[in-house]
Amino acid sequence: MPKTLRPPRPKSVRTPRRKTDVVKAPRLTLRIDFGSGEALGPGKIRLLELIAEHGSISAAGRTMDMSYRRAWLLVDNVNTMFAEPAVVTKTGGAGGGTAELTPFGQSLVRAYRSMERKAATAALRQLSALQKSLSRV
Amino acid sequence: MPKTLRPPRPKSVRTPRRKTDVVKAPRLTLRIDFGSGEALGPGKIRLLELIAEHGSISAAGRTMDMSYRRAWLLVDNVNTMFAEPAVVTKTGGAGGGTAELTPFGQSLVRAYRSMERKAATAALRQLSALQKSLSRV
Repeated sequence: MPKTLRPPRPKSVRTPRRKTDVVKAPRLTLRIDFGSGEALGPGKIRLLELIAEHGSISAAGRTMDMSYRRAWLLVDNVNTMFAEPAVVTKTGGAGGGTAELTPFGQSLVRAYRSMERKAATAALRQLSALQKSLSRV
Repeated sequence: MPKTLRPPRPKSVRTPRRKTDVVKAPRLTLRIDFGSGEALGPGKIRLLELIAEHGSISAAGRTMDMSYRRAWLLVDNVNTMFAEPAVVTKTGGAGGGTAELTPFGQSLVRAYRSMERKAATAALRQLSALQKSLSRV
């Protein structure tokens, strides 16, 4: 067998793709500034989603590599920004307190994700044109 | 004249409004993630706009309270992210070098601002609903 011919590669082994080979669709992220320093962006919304998922501010914060203090401050910021709280906590019981989203908190997350989808749809053509201008394409 | 009646205010003098009195329309900001760590957001776009305005990376950076080093690194990041450079510099001459946007750089800024407007239009109703949920309204 000539040296340049390699044995067939077993099918179950995939060649690891280099990072630059992965062409993903560009992702649009929104930040909403209400003025007076009040803002809502991907971090706070993700935290709310994780609180809904884990039932706990500290567990949600941990998932985002965030201290309990920082997670709590972000929740407090969202809760005081709006007329209604987005997160309510219940203290006590075995295993400590729990946290959950209020109906307003749920609607906040839905509204943000919906705006994100609408924005991405509205910018779709220009986004894929930009994608094609990247140096790694 | 009764004490409760005040003399008419001269027309040129405005009462300064308190920060909390100013209800501005919420502002939407976009961040585009292309994957592989490449991203384009309001900071880089503003820097490009200021380079076009001032003809200089350092002057543009100063306007944004940014060191020359940081401004240069951001420009370099944008220039290597895309297949074509967005900023070109010319060294030498009295008063040092100048910088300007390439036609591609100009189109990049236009595309970003256009996507921003489209996203804001698409999210308009939900944005104003959120605005009405703020605690200070």
